[in-house]
Amino acid sequence: MRITIIGSGNVATHLGAALKNAGHQIVEVYSRNMQNAALLAYHIGAEAIDNLDQVNAETDLFIISVKDDAIIPTAQTLAKYQKLTVHTAGAVGLETLLKFNPKAGVLYPLQTLSKIREVDFNTVPLCIEGAGNDITLLLEQLARTISERVYRVNSDQRRVLHLAAVFACNFPNYLYGIAQQLLEKQDMEFEMLRPLILETAQKVQDHLPQEVQTGPAARNDRITMAAHLQMLNDEPTLQELYTLLSQAIIKKDHRGKGHK
Amino acid sequence: MRITIIGSGNVATHLGAALKNAGHQIVEVYSRNMQNAALLAYHIGAEAIDNLDQVNAETDLFIISVKDDAIIPTAQTLAKYQKLTVHTAGAVGLETLLKFNPKAGVLYPLQTLSKIREVDFNTVPLCIEGAGNDITLLLEQLARTISERVYRVNSDQRRVLHLAAVFACNFPNYLYGIAQQLLEKQDMEFEMLRPLILETAQKVQDHLPQEVQTGPAARNDRITMAAHLQMLNDEPTLQELYTLLSQAIIKKDHRGKGHK
Repeated sequence: MRITIIGSGNVATHLGAALKNAGHQIVEVYSRNMQNAALLAYHIGAEAIDNLDQVNAETDLFIISVKDDAIIPTAQTLAKYQKLTVHTAGAVGLETLLKFNPKAGVLYPLQTLSKIREVDFNTVPLCIEGAGNDITLLLEQLARTISERVYRVNSDQRRVLHLAAVFACNFPNYLYGIAQQLLEKQDMEFEMLRPLILETAQKVQDHLPQEVQTGPAARNDRITMAAHLQMLNDEPTLQELYTLLSQAIIKKDHRGKGHK
Repeated sequence: MRITIIGSGNVATHLGAALKNAGHQIVEVYSRNMQNAALLAYHIGAEAIDNLDQVNAETDLFIISVKDDAIIPTAQTLAKYQKLTVHTAGAVGLETLLKFNPKAGVLYPLQTLSKIREVDFNTVPLCIEGAGNDITLLLEQLARTISERVYRVNSDQRRVLHLAAVFACNFPNYLYGIAQQLLEKQDMEFEMLRPLILETAQKVQDHLPQEVQTGPAARNDRITMAAHLQMLNDEPTLQELYTLLSQAIIKKDHRGKGHK
C-alpha cells in the first residue's frame, strides 16, 4: 500500500517504521516541524513536507497521528482528496473523521511507545475500526502485516481501552515513582525494586490480577497498614492514596471471598 | 551450612529450594501443618516436623519464615538453643529477635513469591542485616550463594523497602485488576492489556519512572481527563482514585518542569 503519515510523534514513528518494514511504500511524512518530518521520512524512505496543503494526493491511505485536538483541522484539510483516512487515537471516535470523509477508520496501537525505546511491533495490540465492512477488512489486512494481535474494536470500546490503559500503565508508572522516592530518602537505589516491578507485571501475563494480589491490604493486616500510614506522616497525599487503595483492595477481597 | 526452615509458606518454599540447590543441607522443615511441612521437606531433602519443641538442635541456622505475628513466639521457643537465627520479614525489626538471642539477623527477599510460580532466585534482591559484623559477613556470604543481588539494609531501611514494595507491586496489581474489569464490562479480554502492562514495567528497567511518565495527566490534557471521569460516573471510588492519582501526576510534572 502507498501510505502517507501525518505526524512525527511516538505513534507516527513506530507505526511508520513497522509499515515500512512490512514492505509498504511510505509516500510522505508531514509534520509542522520540518526537522521532525525530515528525520522520520529519512528513516522510512519517504518525502518530508511541513505544509499540509501541498500533500501528495497519490496515496492510498492517510494516517493521521497527531495530538487529539489537531485531528479535526487535519481531517478537514485532507477532505478534498476523499482518500481512505484513519486516525490513531484512543479517545477520539470514528465519527470525528466521518464528518469530513466517508472513507474513514481507526488504527489504535494499545501500547506505550517512546522514540527512545525499541519495541517489537509484532506484539503490539492493534485496535481497528472501519466505516463499513470493506474498510474494516482492508484495515484488518493492513494491521496483520505489522502485528500478530489485531482486534476489531468500536469507538465506545476504544474509549474504554484508553481509560483502562491509564489504570494499567500511567498510574502504575506513577506509583513506581513514589516507591523510588521513598527509597531515595533512605539512601537506597531504585535498582533494588526493579526485579519486583518486572515480576509483578510478568505474573499477570498468565494469571488474572485478583488471583495474584498480595500485600498487607489483601490479607487485611491492620498492624502493618497502620505502621505504613505512620511512616507516611509527612506525606498527606501518599497517606490518602495508601488508604484509598488499601480500602479498595480490602473491599474487593472480601467481596471476592463472599462469592466463592 | 546446616539450615533449619521454620515455616512452609511462599518465602520458606522458594528460599528453601534455593538454599538446597546451592548445596546447603536443609536439616528440617517445621510447619504447624504436617502436610505442608512434609511437602516442602520432601522437595528439599529434609525431615518434616510439626512440633517446634522437638526441633533438631544440630543445625547452624534457623530461618524463621512465618507470619509476622508468629515471629515472637517462634523466636521465644528457639531461644534455648542460642543458634544463629534470622527472620525473613520486611516490616519486622532485628530487635524483635535480639530480645531472645544475640545471634540474630534478617534475610529479606524483596520479591513477590508465589508457590504457583517459578522464580529465578539468582535475580531476587536479598536484603541482609546481622547483629554485629561477624553475623553480617556470614549472612552476606550465605546470601551470595543463592543470589547475585545482596544488599546490606538496616531495619529502618527495610521497613521503607517493605512500604515501597506496596506502591511498586501490590497497588499496581490492584490497578491492573481495575483495568481488567473496565474491559470486561465492554466484552473485551484482559489479554489485550497484557503487552502494555509488561512494557510499562520493562520501561523502568533502564529508565526512572519520571522519565517515562505518559498519559493525560502527564500532559495535563483536561479534556481527556474530564471524559474519563465522565465514563466512571457509576464508580465513585474509581473516580476518586482517578482524580487523586491524576492530580498527583500533574503536580509532580509541573514541579519537575519548574526545577529544570
